[in-house]
Amino acid sequence: MEFAPDPATADLVERVRAFIHDRVIPAEAVLEEQLAETPGKWNLRPIVRELQASAREQGLWNLFLPGEGGAGLTNLQYAPIAELTGWSPKLGPVSFNCAAPDTGNMELLAEFGTDAQKTEWLEPLLDGRIRSAFCMTEPDVASSDATNIATRIVRDGDEYVITGRKWWSTGAMNPDAAIFIVMGKTDVDAPRHRQQSMILVPRGTEGVEIVRPLTVFGYDDRDHGGHAEIVFHDVRVPAANLIGGEGDGFAIAQARLGPGRIHHCMRALGMAERALALVVSRANERVAFGRPIAEQGVVRQWVAESRIQLEALRLLVLKTAWLMDTVGNRKAMTEIQAIKIAVPRAVQEILDRAIQVFGAAGLSSDVPVAELFAGARALRLADGPDEVHLNALGKAELGRA
Amino acid sequence: MEFAPDPATADLVERVRAFIHDRVIPAEAVLEEQLAETPGKWNLRPIVRELQASAREQGLWNLFLPGEGGAGLTNLQYAPIAELTGWSPKLGPVSFNCAAPDTGNMELLAEFGTDAQKTEWLEPLLDGRIRSAFCMTEPDVASSDATNIATRIVRDGDEYVITGRKWWSTGAMNPDAAIFIVMGKTDVDAPRHRQQSMILVPRGTEGVEIVRPLTVFGYDDRDHGGHAEIVFHDVRVPAANLIGGEGDGFAIAQARLGPGRIHHCMRALGMAERALALVVSRANERVAFGRPIAEQGVVRQWVAESRIQLEALRLLVLKTAWLMDTVGNRKAMTEIQAIKIAVPRAVQEILDRAIQVFGAAGLSSDVPVAELFAGARALRLADGPDEVHLNALGKAELGRA
Amino acid sequence: MEFAPDPATADLVERVRAFIHDRVIPAEAVLEEQLAETPGKWNLRPIVRELQASAREQGLWNLFLPGEGGAGLTNLQYAPIAELTGWSPKLGPVSFNCAAPDTGNMELLAEFGTDAQKTEWLEPLLDGRIRSAFCMTEPDVASSDATNIATRIVRDGDEYVITGRKWWSTGAMNPDAAIFIVMGKTDVDAPRHRQQSMILVPRGTEGVEIVRPLTVFGYDDRDHGGHAEIVFHDVRVPAANLIGGEGDGFAIAQARLGPGRIHHCMRALGMAERALALVVSRANERVAFGRPIAEQGVVRQWVAESRIQLEALRLLVLKTAWLMDTVGNRKAMTEIQAIKIAVPRAVQEILDRAIQVFGAAGLSSDVPVAELFAGARALRLADGPDEVHLNALGKAELGRA
Amino acid sequence: MEFAPDPATADLVERVRAFIHDRVIPAEAVLEEQLAETPGKWNLRPIVRELQASAREQGLWNLFLPGEGGAGLTNLQYAPIAELTGWSPKLGPVSFNCAAPDTGNMELLAEFGTDAQKTEWLEPLLDGRIRSAFCMTEPDVASSDATNIATRIVRDGDEYVITGRKWWSTGAMNPDAAIFIVMGKTDVDAPRHRQQSMILVPRGTEGVEIVRPLTVFGYDDRDHGGHAEIVFHDVRVPAANLIGGEGDGFAIAQARLGPGRIHHCMRALGMAERALALVVSRANERVAFGRPIAEQGVVRQWVAESRIQLEALRLLVLKTAWLMDTVGNRKAMTEIQAIKIAVPRAVQEILDRAIQVFGAAGLSSDVPVAELFAGARALRLADGPDEVHLNALGKAELGRA
Repeated sequence: MEFAPDPATADLVERVRAFIHDRVIPAEAVLEEQLAETPGKWNLRPIVRELQASAREQGLWNLFLPGEGGAGLTNLQYAPIAELTGWSPKLGPVSFNCAAPDTGNMELLAEFGTDAQKTEWLEPLLDGRIRSAFCMTEPDVASSDATNIATRIVRDGDEYVITGRKWWSTGAMNPDAAIFIVMGKTDVDAPRHRQQSMILVPRGTEGVEIVRPLTVFGYDDRDHGGHAEIVFHDVRVPAANLIGGEGDGFAIAQARLGPGRIHHCMRALGMAERALALVVSRANERVAFGRPIAEQGVVRQWVAESRIQLEALRLLVLKTAWLMDTVGNRKAMTEIQAIKIAVPRAVQEILDRAIQVFGAAGLSSDVPVAELFAGARALRLADGPDEVHLNALGKAELGRA
Repeated sequence: MEFAPDPATADLVERVRAFIHDRVIPAEAVLEEQLAETPGKWNLRPIVRELQASAREQGLWNLFLPGEGGAGLTNLQYAPIAELTGWSPKLGPVSFNCAAPDTGNMELLAEFGTDAQKTEWLEPLLDGRIRSAFCMTEPDVASSDATNIATRIVRDGDEYVITGRKWWSTGAMNPDAAIFIVMGKTDVDAPRHRQQSMILVPRGTEGVEIVRPLTVFGYDDRDHGGHAEIVFHDVRVPAANLIGGEGDGFAIAQARLGPGRIHHCMRALGMAERALALVVSRANERVAFGRPIAEQGVVRQWVAESRIQLEALRLLVLKTAWLMDTVGNRKAMTEIQAIKIAVPRAVQEILDRAIQVFGAAGLSSDVPVAELFAGARALRLADGPDEVHLNALGKAELGRA
Repeated sequence: MEFAPDPATADLVERVRAFIHDRVIPAEAVLEEQLAETPGKWNLRPIVRELQASAREQGLWNLFLPGEGGAGLTNLQYAPIAELTGWSPKLGPVSFNCAAPDTGNMELLAEFGTDAQKTEWLEPLLDGRIRSAFCMTEPDVASSDATNIATRIVRDGDEYVITGRKWWSTGAMNPDAAIFIVMGKTDVDAPRHRQQSMILVPRGTEGVEIVRPLTVFGYDDRDHGGHAEIVFHDVRVPAANLIGGEGDGFAIAQARLGPGRIHHCMRALGMAERALALVVSRANERVAFGRPIAEQGVVRQWVAESRIQLEALRLLVLKTAWLMDTVGNRKAMTEIQAIKIAVPRAVQEILDRAIQVFGAAGLSSDVPVAELFAGARALRLADGPDEVHLNALGKAELGRA
Repeated sequence: MEFAPDPATADLVERVRAFIHDRVIPAEAVLEEQLAETPGKWNLRPIVRELQASAREQGLWNLFLPGEGGAGLTNLQYAPIAELTGWSPKLGPVSFNCAAPDTGNMELLAEFGTDAQKTEWLEPLLDGRIRSAFCMTEPDVASSDATNIATRIVRDGDEYVITGRKWWSTGAMNPDAAIFIVMGKTDVDAPRHRQQSMILVPRGTEGVEIVRPLTVFGYDDRDHGGHAEIVFHDVRVPAANLIGGEGDGFAIAQARLGPGRIHHCMRALGMAERALALVVSRANERVAFGRPIAEQGVVRQWVAESRIQLEALRLLVLKTAWLMDTVGNRKAMTEIQAIKIAVPRAVQEILDRAIQVFGAAGLSSDVPVAELFAGARALRLADGPDEVHLNALGKAELGRA
């Protein structure tokens, strides 16, 4: 057992840390200005392109991708990098072309795509020329139960016809999101986990209607393409657009979600570290009742509790990454569920305390804590609510799974 | 001891309940449309005027005001009405001309205003012709400590000159908010709680700069006039605009905050009841893993915990109201602090669980729970953060106050 | 609505308070000495008899009993008295002949007993000459589910034959506990809630075996007769010993548990108030790092949180008592469940904090907080674990009960 | 970074695991019988001697001691072994001669003792022939603040004279506890952390009065020598009994507490794992409302939460051990404080849930959960209450330490 990172990872982490602190965080104010100048626009702003160019030049590009075309890092090696990008959810991940949902979509194409699919969609994604969306969640059913999916993907000659309504398709408001990966049912009579398939739907295909953007606690998340509600009205795509075979959809989704959860958790830890750093500054500067609030017992207690939660949970995420690397996603299931439950919840709590330390300012856009809170809160629902995972984990622990 | 309300109150409460359910809640969708049609506008929308006319016709007007010009209700009698208005924070209180900060400002003028001040400002407020703002919190200091206030109110001949920066002046973005009550220091050398004064500043006075609106999470609260940052650049008003005498500001603020906290707490309970009603519907309709989620143990547990919290805290608020009515605000201080701490916190928790029951929809504007959450979260900071009150309450209980 | 008690109750409460503070609490040390002098003995100690004589002389006797033979108090009137007795669980209730399980047993006999049963058992109980036990819980089944009960009560001519194993029969180690009320099944084929009956079994009946005493966190609760495991080996009693008719057992148990829960909750609040009073003294006396710990933020916070919990929950218990008095136990079910869940849990938390304030002393028998903790902890299991009630309450609230 | 243990440790851990499961846990019932047969006796029971002989034969002896005379394990290597011993606090640690306070005392003597002190006291301790006590905490002062210590150690010629009152001297009721390490002040005028010294006081020295045993909740912890209150009445020992020099007491105590806290935390995790294993069995066996309680949502949730807490905290303890091994106790201070706070608290929570799963049985001595709870609860006070550490950790994190 050894808790120090290997030297190569340590070096890479330091380079990413420097980039985040020196380039990314100062650029946040620029992004806000650029967003304010173009209300209603959903594309990436110029500052993002600048950061991407700079990061790419430094070799900090596609770090998330384990195999060919990526940086070749293990989950364990990538984890601290993902954490650092979480310090700036709006600019960190995207600067390195490591932003969700593109990361998951690129992994999926790299693992399950045909050569043609890779050439057409993976390459421009890896190159940062286009973006993508993942269309799984539906408004009318509890999507935590995959058997509920109502979207249909029906074979008709050389084509598939897609019919259904999706929402929370993150990034899809961005017109540069050129390709949608859509989950639907090809066979409602197949066994429970063989009914679903995944298919590639180019944005411009006839019948694809972007209905509206959704908000998260009032935020439209315009910086990263928002969250769209999309209707697929008898949308026809070539049969070759299917990813894997018919009925592979559930298995592919599971494969995609494992690393995705690790990434989410690591970024969430970074969000919390950012907030904690802001809290430390604030608490030392702000004076109430004659002394800095850093001298109040309750503030110390909050900071200490936050530190403890972060240290313990980071180790659990790292161990999960290590398990995925050494025994595989399947055998790491308990740990993946554990961090999926525990990390966003703890981060939400840390951010709630951070808001409290900042007082009314903490609710506003003057400091990022309220918006980070909204992001963390959403993670407790993304990929299934906490409770579904808690129940599954408990069942397994009780030997009844 | 008797837990049943008196018959007159019971009757009034039923009439308010009917108005809220039959008129107000259905009007929320109309309000959203009207807001969408006029982005960037901060006035009350037409639907509000309609509801006000209708409520006034039914005698449901200025119910909050205990004395002359109001409905003559005690705090205990008004409490269940305030709770009902909380079911719809955007339309409930304003329909009855019972919305903050106007309520507190009207009480203040009714109690401490001169006849001239009443004629000029209280009457149009009671009549719903104008609205008002309360300018206390400042961005640069911890406002929970009144001695920190940096705004200056300096006598100069027949005038006072006001200089300072305020923020979180709720309602002040609305151009109909014609009058601002500003707290500042007239004498920095006076004893700690005799340094502050309050003064009336008409909106249009030279030197009043409305700097920008603030957001709470991502919400601009445009429906009720937003939250403004305001700079007072050597603003001159007649000396007769002072409320009470020099040095009375702290005492007036305390008098204003007592009932204000009760109102906030009661409305917050109504917010939670609304959310709980929504949760009950949703849980019975939504199916996951083959059965309504109302049959899941965790959902039952949440609903039960919410019910328990609401029942216990409502009683505490009611007892506090009764104490204010019978022994006065000062002797009800422990209870006022207790509800100020406990109610918003519990309501936040209840709303957080409601979001979880609604899944991703709960984050969006399709159901009101996320926006209600933001409102409840803000209450934990309004009029001082929880922790200040917790410390004061503990100190008193330990016999050291 | 009115939060002040009626004058007669207020007066009675003051007399009880004086007795508790002046007589009962100082007697605790005497009790400890008397217990230490007679290890292994389970009877009431002489000091109890002294206190009883004195209380009875002052008319403070059988205060719990609403009807004839009792004090005629409503549940609402008795509640504050029960709370005061909770300040000293070992001596408070018993001094006024208001100790569980005798209270519940006397209520049961008063309501459901025949004249003969009343003469034989109720009278000496009301007179304090004998004590009693209630034998419901069984070791081999989950007793929160009444249909699980394994004890059989079988009619055989003029007799009933009782066979089964009970435990947690509080008070039954005391040889003066002359009568046991035993719950068992008379008809396993009857509808779910008509299978059970209750029967009177005199302690000395052949076949009654007191197996052993049980401990609660190491405490044997010898002061109030401990908790016994009892086996009934084909125990024969006259048919006239049945309480009510065959199949009435479940209904009688429910009737008994309503007031019992109120009493438990009120006493628990008294336990917490006692602990809080001890904490206040301790925190003002104990010095660490140069100042009384009452000046530490965390201690203030604990005290404040405890005060808030107690005030809110007391009101909920009082309202529940009022509902029982005005609309009956059945319609007060939600509230009874609510307090059953919320009060012991909050009191446990308050006592846990009290232990922390006392440091290692808090774990020992030098201050009563650890033993009070054990008592409160046990309440979360007595009459069914929290979770059973939480589930039932949630189900009802969701409209699915 | 690597989460797998080294092969030698893995092997040793398996041998210890087998010993605990095959020998120690079955012996618990024997211990209870032997304790019951000899009430009031505080020595080790025969079963302990049997287990010790067997463990020693297998080379499982003094595993805690890093250097000469011990097993040569690092903290990281010893950690999983300490955890396993925690499965049976009464028999696990002592079987391997790894029980507190002897472990800390042996470490202390090994590091700071003179050759003579080692020969006289360390050797028989390592050999299991005698036991020892550590006399630090005092009843009259808050011992979390070392400057409060009231005991005096005064030089008088060739002797030191010790005067003071100690309590919570664990193990000291056992007549075989032949040597006491006593902390007191040699110079009240020295700098804050140079006033204290430590000295060896043989049990039989004139003036040593064992006043009484203390209980933790209702447990006397007779199995491991209880907890004594001891008065030192002008007790004279040779000057050579001083450990280190005058004024070294605080530093020695700090050195002793670091590993001690790790051990406590690891054992506490083992206690929780034991409880969780018991809960899993119970939940699968116990039927309520027609199905095993393992199928109840709330039980699954508890088990899942417990698993998550244990996994995260174990990693934090292991990392702390690794830091102590690689950068030293001083630089591991934040982590040591973190686990000191977080582990006992989480374990208490896990045990509280275990009690709830067991119902009333969980309160009794029929299952070990209530007694384990008492042990975990005590850990939140041992070596200073949580809050002292939380405050210190927060202060450091805020950059103000």
